[in-house]
Amino acid sequence: MLVNETIRIIVAGPRGRMGKEAVQLVKETPQFELAAVIDRKNEGKLLSDVEGFAGLDVPVFTDPAECFQQANADVLIDLTTPERGYIHTKMALEYSVRPVVGTTGFTPEQLDELKGLAEEKGIGCIIAPNFAIGAILMMKFSEMAAKYFDDVEIIEMHHDQKLDAPSGTAIKTAEMISNNRKARKQGHEDEKETISGARGADFEGMRIHSVRLPGLIAHQQVLFGAGGQTLTIRHDSYNRASFMSGVKVSVETVIRLDTLVYGLESILD
Amino acid sequence: MLVNETIRIIVAGPRGRMGKEAVQLVKETPQFELAAVIDRKNEGKLLSDVEGFAGLDVPVFTDPAECFQQANADVLIDLTTPERGYIHTKMALEYSVRPVVGTTGFTPEQLDELKGLAEEKGIGCIIAPNFAIGAILMMKFSEMAAKYFDDVEIIEMHHDQKLDAPSGTAIKTAEMISNNRKARKQGHEDEKETISGARGADFEGMRIHSVRLPGLIAHQQVLFGAGGQTLTIRHDSYNRASFMSGVKVSVETVIRLDTLVYGLESILD
Amino acid sequence: MLVNETIRIIVAGPRGRMGKEAVQLVKETPQFELAAVIDRKNEGKLLSDVEGFAGLDVPVFTDPAECFQQANADVLIDLTTPERGYIHTKMALEYSVRPVVGTTGFTPEQLDELKGLAEEKGIGCIIAPNFAIGAILMMKFSEMAAKYFDDVEIIEMHHDQKLDAPSGTAIKTAEMISNNRKARKQGHEDEKETISGARGADFEGMRIHSVRLPGLIAHQQVLFGAGGQTLTIRHDSYNRASFMSGVKVSVETVIRLDTLVYGLESILD
Amino acid sequence: MLVNETIRIIVAGPRGRMGKEAVQLVKETPQFELAAVIDRKNEGKLLSDVEGFAGLDVPVFTDPAECFQQANADVLIDLTTPERGYIHTKMALEYSVRPVVGTTGFTPEQLDELKGLAEEKGIGCIIAPNFAIGAILMMKFSEMAAKYFDDVEIIEMHHDQKLDAPSGTAIKTAEMISNNRKARKQGHEDEKETISGARGADFEGMRIHSVRLPGLIAHQQVLFGAGGQTLTIRHDSYNRASFMSGVKVSVETVIRLDTLVYGLESILD
Repeated sequence: MLVNETIRIIVAGPRGRMGKEAVQLVKETPQFELAAVIDRKNEGKLLSDVEGFAGLDVPVFTDPAECFQQANADVLIDLTTPERGYIHTKMALEYSVRPVVGTTGFTPEQLDELKGLAEEKGIGCIIAPNFAIGAILMMKFSEMAAKYFDDVEIIEMHHDQKLDAPSGTAIKTAEMISNNRKARKQGHEDEKETISGARGADFEGMRIHSVRLPGLIAHQQVLFGAGGQTLTIRHDSYNRASFMSGVKVSVETVIRLDTLVYGLESILD
Repeated sequence: MLVNETIRIIVAGPRGRMGKEAVQLVKETPQFELAAVIDRKNEGKLLSDVEGFAGLDVPVFTDPAECFQQANADVLIDLTTPERGYIHTKMALEYSVRPVVGTTGFTPEQLDELKGLAEEKGIGCIIAPNFAIGAILMMKFSEMAAKYFDDVEIIEMHHDQKLDAPSGTAIKTAEMISNNRKARKQGHEDEKETISGARGADFEGMRIHSVRLPGLIAHQQVLFGAGGQTLTIRHDSYNRASFMSGVKVSVETVIRLDTLVYGLESILD
Repeated sequence: MLVNETIRIIVAGPRGRMGKEAVQLVKETPQFELAAVIDRKNEGKLLSDVEGFAGLDVPVFTDPAECFQQANADVLIDLTTPERGYIHTKMALEYSVRPVVGTTGFTPEQLDELKGLAEEKGIGCIIAPNFAIGAILMMKFSEMAAKYFDDVEIIEMHHDQKLDAPSGTAIKTAEMISNNRKARKQGHEDEKETISGARGADFEGMRIHSVRLPGLIAHQQVLFGAGGQTLTIRHDSYNRASFMSGVKVSVETVIRLDTLVYGLESILD
Repeated sequence: MLVNETIRIIVAGPRGRMGKEAVQLVKETPQFELAAVIDRKNEGKLLSDVEGFAGLDVPVFTDPAECFQQANADVLIDLTTPERGYIHTKMALEYSVRPVVGTTGFTPEQLDELKGLAEEKGIGCIIAPNFAIGAILMMKFSEMAAKYFDDVEIIEMHHDQKLDAPSGTAIKTAEMISNNRKARKQGHEDEKETISGARGADFEGMRIHSVRLPGLIAHQQVLFGAGGQTLTIRHDSYNRASFMSGVKVSVETVIRLDTLVYGLESILD
């Protein structure tokens, strides 16, 4: 494709919470054009006939194959389920439409298969568990900072309806930091918890603290300390719109790739 | 005493780390005047003859009784040890000099005795475990906010040479919050720690997190959450100078009191 | 009223953005009971017949007088416009229903008249420009801290669609701080801006900084500094739900009042 | 040099504030060994004879040439003045000792000359205006993040004795961000300052805010915003020790270089 040419896009799952945001993104981005949508309902309608999509007169397909055949699209944005997403992604590659897929649910075997297919076709494919660019950068910068700071703690803060602690992002951050940090107990050698749990979760000697409060949404800070200084990298996610900047970058990037890339961190430099 | 009259002050322990700051405070405050110092060494010298006190030509006494008799002082600032501090405080009250004492070390019996003595003499006396006004206000505001917010967590952050977790200030803050908060488990009813300790120390259902990193000094934040909002109260202590604002307020206040007051929070309104 | 008795409530403007939240609040609070709503439309319907209010089978009135006569309510929550709110408030007082009104738009004359009416009837009435309890506490604590810290700066941070800088809340905070702070230039006597505006807006010598970024919602921190320490009071408002805690406290309080109170800060202790 | 071999180091200016920290660093680092010091006084003494350096029995030289000839050192750490630093650096290169120099004061001509000399000798030389690794990383990460976030503001916070606003670090950060950001007005098109200066200093459309308060030391945060999220990178510098981590990395790196490098950001990856 030529630079500055319009990118024609199919959105799968336009009525889902994320899908709605994706349609909105395509609509608002001058270089993007909505070609069609894949929806489990509303076959044969125009999207503009569906509530909440006034003005978007592109066709709705329930059969993905038909959609890929007729829509003349460059990119598929899929924010549905792992099951449907896998079918859509495979089919898109077969029709030489480049997929941008948000999921954590593909198996290693599925990823291998899709990777092979992308290479065979010589086109790009991006599969990402997290599209919030700020969160990806927070993790990437943390990994880099760990080369120069031996000591680090993570504080993640979420609404009080969250079930698991620490959060998946905190664990992923700790794993990336581990690439540049040797496992090692931090704090004073003889430190003592007078109330158990005060020093947080122990991940190879670095500590993770999980705050849960009503009002909070999704926040994380990574604190590095060394003699006389601290470096803090913090991400605050306020709503789903935060994912769309990552989808946008992915669409712009997938056009230039000729292979499958897993994780947004691999395409940010 | 009349307002705006100069307050004549004795400092006990002028060569100690805190005592040095106190001498500096008296020197820099227009309404304060250094009358004399009580030191275990240097009897008969002028303070200006001791290294580090150029220009301060007030007498040094090793005998406290002699000091109180001769110095014609209004206030004693004592930042020595519990043992010496007790002796100085009792003697000061007997000579009608108003004591401002920084210590956590007096027994209830000693406090009772000193209280009786202050009332007998009808003069003020302030004994405080912590003179950092910012820390006192943080605790006081947290206690107040707990009337309106049911959910609260504390994050305290210190240098990595600290032995105990949570910090004494964090525990004291939690205790003050408890005055306006019923014990109650916070977070989701079914929340689960995938790494033990992630949710911090449990103090009557509120959570306390202790961060330890080189570079940090002494910091604490208290986070209150409710639907759609959070309120955070944070204190950062960078060095010992932070205690001197509390000593200053205490000297100004003790002059107007006619009884013994324990804890700075009791004189802040 | 007896403590723990159910409070019967009329909500005016139930379909508005704030009104919807108020209906939700009444529904979720065990001690509260929705008695009726005042709406410009839907006369004669049950609220449950209006979209979005399933299960709430209370009558809808377009005529407020009729509503007050028939609903047997204790409290009116009015989150409409200044014009309609004034009419509703006056009429509520005449019918001995206690008003809780969110507005900045009443004139001093209107407030005086309503105050007289409340006293005549011997019942409470709360009129508040801001119901976010966290914001009110931030301002109140800032006013208190100003007694002990001479130096303070305010950083307020909002989304980049906000037109005015500084925010109304920042100015109101600065005014409350002024109650305990003498006007005085802060910073170094000879400080110099190498790029104009760096030191922010000057309000009687204290500085206010306005950050505007997409993603942000409504945040403010008040920083106090003194030798060796800083004290920070911060409020983050994430969505309209933040106002409802203040409405709840107001309803619970107005029942016990026998006069008109302006501003939530007057009922928080 | 072989990896893990001890690095023999000369410190110039050991009695200066930074020099003292450098001596301490060399003493505490197992792989480092103090070979000698260059001092304007104390010729012929051992460093251990000078107050504050007990146990460090290495020779003191006032003549740098003599020092380089006799000390058999690998690296010179110079934290003196631009004038003396230039002489020491040049001479060190001539004696094939690798210089690590902290200064902003060399002229472009001097830098060119030293660069030529380093290449001629085929050895490394590091000259850095700032050795606080945390600050360097903050700037570097900000430059990187600017590729993905269009909107950014800087808040720098210092003690109230600082004369210039914005700080040099804030301006340098803004310059680095400019490498990846087009000049563009931020905030609402029609935004209005009701008190002048509220929106801060304008640097190519991004805003810089300078907070000055007693108690603060040296802090900076860089805030990036986009739909639904913010990313914050913050550095807190508490004391001079913060520079030593950068000196340490520089010593370890200069050994492997064969050219002159300006700025620590060039050696961090």
